[in-house]
Amino acid sequence: MIKRVLVPVSRGFEEIEAITIVDILRRAGAEVVLAGVDGDRVTGRSGITVVPDTSLDDALEKRPYDMIVLPGGLPNAHTLRDDPRIIAGLRRTLAEGGRVGAICAAPLALERAGLLEGRLATSTPGAEKDLVSATYSTDRVVISGPVATSRSAGTAMEFAFALVGELFGGDKVDEVNSGVLARL
Amino acid sequence: MIKRVLVPVSRGFEEIEAITIVDILRRAGAEVVLAGVDGDRVTGRSGITVVPDTSLDDALEKRPYDMIVLPGGLPNAHTLRDDPRIIAGLRRTLAEGGRVGAICAAPLALERAGLLEGRLATSTPGAEKDLVSATYSTDRVVISGPVATSRSAGTAMEFAFALVGELFGGDKVDEVNSGVLARL
Repeated sequence: MIKRVLVPVSRGFEEIEAITIVDILRRAGAEVVLAGVDGDRVTGRSGITVVPDTSLDDALEKRPYDMIVLPGGLPNAHTLRDDPRIIAGLRRTLAEGGRVGAICAAPLALERAGLLEGRLATSTPGAEKDLVSATYSTDRVVISGPVATSRSAGTAMEFAFALVGELFGGDKVDEVNSGVLARL
Repeated sequence: MIKRVLVPVSRGFEEIEAITIVDILRRAGAEVVLAGVDGDRVTGRSGITVVPDTSLDDALEKRPYDMIVLPGGLPNAHTLRDDPRIIAGLRRTLAEGGRVGAICAAPLALERAGLLEGRLATSTPGAEKDLVSATYSTDRVVISGPVATSRSAGTAMEFAFALVGELFGGDKVDEVNSGVLARL
């Protein structure tokens, strides 16, 4: 079974976070859809412009997803948090037995969706105070049932490989990393 | 003095490598030009399309650069190696007192330019046999005078921070990493 993953991005997304997640999950064999929330060219917080595969609306029509992963960066993380399509997509994916993930300030969307209640979670340090329903962790990657969170661009590689582990298992992590040489 | 860095990309570039280098160097305050070698939209080896800031020809008109850094990925690394504009740009940058860097299979271009003679260098394992003029190292990042090399997407973060250290010094590495949380 092909694993399908949705990665939405809007203006100000953190480029390393988004691209590392997409690249590593594709290397693992996932079908990853990079969806533009606010246009067909989206510029990140460090000024790099990407061309998404499709729009968020088109991507959401092609449910279900095994996983939705939210990159951080501002204002992207706030845009995702404030978009009812994202909130509904996160809830529905979990309800259907899928997984969700968020890094940096993007766990704010998981909080808004009510998905951190009773869970361990992490984020960029500045977002800790707003994750009021989670038990906060400062671990670099936190897996709490079907909800994965991580801290910043510098933890994106470990986060992406943790997602590979959740979707495909540890053997796939080792296989992909034999070509990537990350320190995991 | 603003530090100017040129990062050329062509079809098949490794997305994590290119984006991590650009993002981290921009966070450090460098003026980074992401230059398209073969078009105004360039798709990487994992299917992510970026919009370069400018074309390679336009970028090369705006010399000098303090550093040229080559991402890997195939066929990008071979395209860069076989492009006389890249080879001339690398030689000229070094001759003018600047620095050059390459990761993954892109050190092949440094070899072609004759810039690895008498130097330590690394690369993706598969390119080792072709770096005949270098003393080969399996270190994750190798700094040999003004020539920096590294191994793969999983070493790109350490490589990018090493380039920040070369251009701006260790205090800047710590400053940028306080927001990024990489394990260096």
